[in-house]
Amino acid sequence: MTEDDFLKALFARLPSPPGRLVIPPGDDCAGYAPGGGKVLLVAVDQIVEKRHYLAEGPAAATPEQVGRKLLARNLSDIAAMGGKPLFCLVATSLGPRHDEGWLNRFFKGLLKLGKKQGVFMIGGDLATAPRDTVASLTIVGEVQRGDVLRRSGARPGDLLFATGKFGRSLRTGHHLLFEPRLKEGQWLARNRLARAAIDVSDGLLVDAWRLCRASRVGLRLDTSSIPLRTAGTTLQEALSDGEDYELLFAVSKQKAKGLVKMWPFARVPVTQIGEFFSAGRPVIVDRRDIRLSGGGYDHFRVRRG
Amino acid sequence: MTEDDFLKALFARLPSPPGRLVIPPGDDCAGYAPGGGKVLLVAVDQIVEKRHYLAEGPAAATPEQVGRKLLARNLSDIAAMGGKPLFCLVATSLGPRHDEGWLNRFFKGLLKLGKKQGVFMIGGDLATAPRDTVASLTIVGEVQRGDVLRRSGARPGDLLFATGKFGRSLRTGHHLLFEPRLKEGQWLARNRLARAAIDVSDGLLVDAWRLCRASRVGLRLDTSSIPLRTAGTTLQEALSDGEDYELLFAVSKQKAKGLVKMWPFARVPVTQIGEFFSAGRPVIVDRRDIRLSGGGYDHFRVRRG
Repeated sequence: MTEDDFLKALFARLPSPPGRLVIPPGDDCAGYAPGGGKVLLVAVDQIVEKRHYLAEGPAAATPEQVGRKLLARNLSDIAAMGGKPLFCLVATSLGPRHDEGWLNRFFKGLLKLGKKQGVFMIGGDLATAPRDTVASLTIVGEVQRGDVLRRSGARPGDLLFATGKFGRSLRTGHHLLFEPRLKEGQWLARNRLARAAIDVSDGLLVDAWRLCRASRVGLRLDTSSIPLRTAGTTLQEALSDGEDYELLFAVSKQKAKGLVKMWPFARVPVTQIGEFFSAGRPVIVDRRDIRLSGGGYDHFRVRRG
Repeated sequence: MTEDDFLKALFARLPSPPGRLVIPPGDDCAGYAPGGGKVLLVAVDQIVEKRHYLAEGPAAATPEQVGRKLLARNLSDIAAMGGKPLFCLVATSLGPRHDEGWLNRFFKGLLKLGKKQGVFMIGGDLATAPRDTVASLTIVGEVQRGDVLRRSGARPGDLLFATGKFGRSLRTGHHLLFEPRLKEGQWLARNRLARAAIDVSDGLLVDAWRLCRASRVGLRLDTSSIPLRTAGTTLQEALSDGEDYELLFAVSKQKAKGLVKMWPFARVPVTQIGEFFSAGRPVIVDRRDIRLSGGGYDHFRVRRG
């Protein structure tokens, strides 16, 4: 069973949340309207030794990189909603291979990125774990209620755009060094240019499919236009590797030309990679109408009980 | 180094948070004023296999109890601020001894308590861990800005009250079965009866000392009046065992009599157990002025790097 399936089944069992929960679970963040015109965005993500990073060996991440990655992953979720991050809370369970010096460096990396992005750490819990280190971070951000980018707004005829490049995130170190697309997401939201958005954590195909599912549309992907991270990167890697932390977003045909023209982020490519169409169920096809499926990295696979 | 020390040093390194963060880190919850008269309360806490519960052996916790305890611990932090819980986010890293059935039962226990207390789960992250299970929960609650109970309001001459009984939490199973004192905390806050409050997670003495430190007062503890959980419970156990999840709160002498008279929670004892006095540094003494110190359970002790 995948994480998506499990969480979907879990949330389906929950009672209906109160009215102020304007964005229920299932998007990149949940959204709560405390009053006034703002929506508070919240999400949680974690990082597990040997799953999301290695502490030993030639591909070992530095403690600073582990802390940075934990925050950056969560910032990517805020970016996908068009939000501005405000605060974070961090729970750390430290395995015996890591000491106080490691923890200090972990927080150094996390807080350096926090300072850069204006995110304050306002809560923490520390414990020791018998074996492997696990850390989780809850992010709180905000966005104007009318601006928020959800997964569910794409319509047939809209075009799919992507920031950045795809594939080989692990091999190139991108998964540790990426810049969450906060400015880009905020710009899209503020200018009402995108109708829907998601960030690519588990793979372009998987996350594009989630956008389709939430928006109840199909997607024709122009696979030849997907920007590849390196010269050697294959299409399969670009579609499935994951950990790209780029934004996928839907733009109406009317606004697409203006978007490309006005795009103010010179260092971050923006590329049209597909077009949505009307479909009874979420489906992704290539230009020859051949169905694309599978792939993507799911950090959660367990035995059935 | 203890968790308190580490987090204090960490938060001291952070830049000053923005004005809307009306309760900075270091209390039971941090508090954020999104506008309007409310304060949003947030806190994070985690539960680690072999640290906070056993999965095997005669003292093993059921999965439902583990889930329940994780939420209950966080609710206790909201209770200590006089708040009403709203939402939670849960990150779970599942070890190989636990399967999907375990996870379902874990959430069943968590959500049953959530339903009872009106807390909605609005976000989750699942991963698998190589060895031991770790779960963290972030709680979001709210309180009227003027009502919020902080650790820092106790004044010399105020009396210290406690809900419930103390000691032998592990041995009696109280640590799995306790009721977070939400109604009690809300009642104290709404009626402006308490000037300061904290919940007892790490031990009566340690948490009373934290109240003293935040309020810059000393405390004379009437050790003979501390309610003991069982007939055989020793004073040392009551002072140091921890995981009682009762409230300690400061009440002015004026209001103390009324409080005892009006206390509407017939099943939960409320007991005066001490009196605060003016002191240059946080200190706890008994009635004969002998200093009480030490004890308490800290889940976080690591090697120095």
